[in-house]
Amino acid sequence: MPDSTATAATSEIEFLVRYAETDQMQVVYHANYLIWCEMGRTDLIGQFGTSYADIEKQGVALAVVDASLRYHAAARYGDRIRVRTTLADARSRSVTFDYLIENAETGAKLVSARTTLASINGEGKLVSMPPHLRRALESAIA
Amino acid sequence: MPDSTATAATSEIEFLVRYAETDQMQVVYHANYLIWCEMGRTDLIGQFGTSYADIEKQGVALAVVDASLRYHAAARYGDRIRVRTTLADARSRSVTFDYLIENAETGAKLVSARTTLASINGEGKLVSMPPHLRRALESAIA
Amino acid sequence: MPDSTATAATSEIEFLVRYAETDQMQVVYHANYLIWCEMGRTDLIGQFGTSYADIEKQGVALAVVDASLRYHAAARYGDRIRVRTTLADARSRSVTFDYLIENAETGAKLVSARTTLASINGEGKLVSMPPHLRRALESAIA
Amino acid sequence: MPDSTATAATSEIEFLVRYAETDQMQVVYHANYLIWCEMGRTDLIGQFGTSYADIEKQGVALAVVDASLRYHAAARYGDRIRVRTTLADARSRSVTFDYLIENAETGAKLVSARTTLASINGEGKLVSMPPHLRRALESAIA
Repeated sequence: MPDSTATAATSEIEFLVRYAETDQMQVVYHANYLIWCEMGRTDLIGQFGTSYADIEKQGVALAVVDASLRYHAAARYGDRIRVRTTLADARSRSVTFDYLIENAETGAKLVSARTTLASINGEGKLVSMPPHLRRALESAIA
Repeated sequence: MPDSTATAATSEIEFLVRYAETDQMQVVYHANYLIWCEMGRTDLIGQFGTSYADIEKQGVALAVVDASLRYHAAARYGDRIRVRTTLADARSRSVTFDYLIENAETGAKLVSARTTLASINGEGKLVSMPPHLRRALESAIA
Repeated sequence: MPDSTATAATSEIEFLVRYAETDQMQVVYHANYLIWCEMGRTDLIGQFGTSYADIEKQGVALAVVDASLRYHAAARYGDRIRVRTTLADARSRSVTFDYLIENAETGAKLVSARTTLASINGEGKLVSMPPHLRRALESAIA
Repeated sequence: MPDSTATAATSEIEFLVRYAETDQMQVVYHANYLIWCEMGRTDLIGQFGTSYADIEKQGVALAVVDASLRYHAAARYGDRIRVRTTLADARSRSVTFDYLIENAETGAKLVSARTTLASINGEGKLVSMPPHLRRALESAIA
């Protein structure tokens, strides 16, 4: 946590790889890293004094519009995983997160990823983010 | 198919096992068979002149309240799977389906399963099924 | 942990519901509870002084042969979940676990489940469990 | 299909969206499109006179090392999906595929994606692709 009053712009979560997440290559199936990224940004948004569940209750959803992943090494069943999520960019109607997924025991870099999410309403139209989320994001970026 | 005007009470669907569905035991992860069961009853309900998507648009959901599965043999990546879904019981507020999941090429029995679903509204309260679905189910059972 | 030398026969784990685990009914998709059961028994087996990953390295896999689930109430995105796993029965070539899945904040019972797993080798043949696992299971049952 | 003897470098597959693939935003969860991409390249590789399952039996796996996705519109439960997979590049130890995921009924573009896969052996080391696969890929690219 920074010693200033600024909102922290980084989250770290840890968890164990589930058997269900492996595939017959004996490693974690590549699509599952996107799920882990979503867990990371859920945690980061929670640090902004709101929760993603609350944002949705206000009729706004953050929909992924762009995702890119680079796979460096494989995660395996039982590995302890760390996901570091960083706020990369925030605009009135979109937000971009960076992710670094590591083996928490060895520190080995597994996947680096970036996703951009757009703020949409129930009809799928682009809308501005809820003001308190936007302020928190801008504060975190600053 | 019955020679009367009664709705058919059986569905058969076929599809290929996806890589994502395997686990490091080199076979399909056991939870995925429940997904295949759901595909089977979606198809069967579609034969009743309605679609499960339409039922939900009327504010009624069919929530699984009970499931049991017996695993006889393993499915593997690339296998062609056949799911035979049969209507086992229908009541005003619940419906029970039986499933037989086979390897479509060899005929080997993979999994037999049964699920019971309850008809609930948006608040999660038990409600009667939409009349046309109920009539179709009763006709199919008869 | 019991104060005797007997192995504990219960595990408790907690975690948050992932967005990916929900479906359009706004609740956790029913097949995912089987994944949570597997997390519970992974933890319980770990308490037996071995790990399921190690068991597989010895060429033995525990394959689910029977599963039953009763759904009492729905889990939602962001809920904190507790899975209590208990050893129900242990034989030379199979083991049965019971699961109680609850909302960790409210204590509400969500799902009760039971799975039986068979000990198989790389060719899918029934084999006796590794001796140390079998002893730990028998001790835990006693 | 080209009128020459060259292997076709495009695959088209169609299937229905599963309930399990939706999330509480009432649309397909974004990670699932990577699973659909994998189904597309499985089909395309199958057209090359081999199957991905056979490649793995030869001790070679194609591991995703890079993935990028652009989300244009949402898929919903029950939608018929079409995945068009194209071979974009082929080298001795890697291959790149492009994907266009559409609503098969409306033709609406849902997701465009690209993945690069590396050819690795059982120890995770980069190796050359099996000769017949490499020849097929080169022929398709030409």
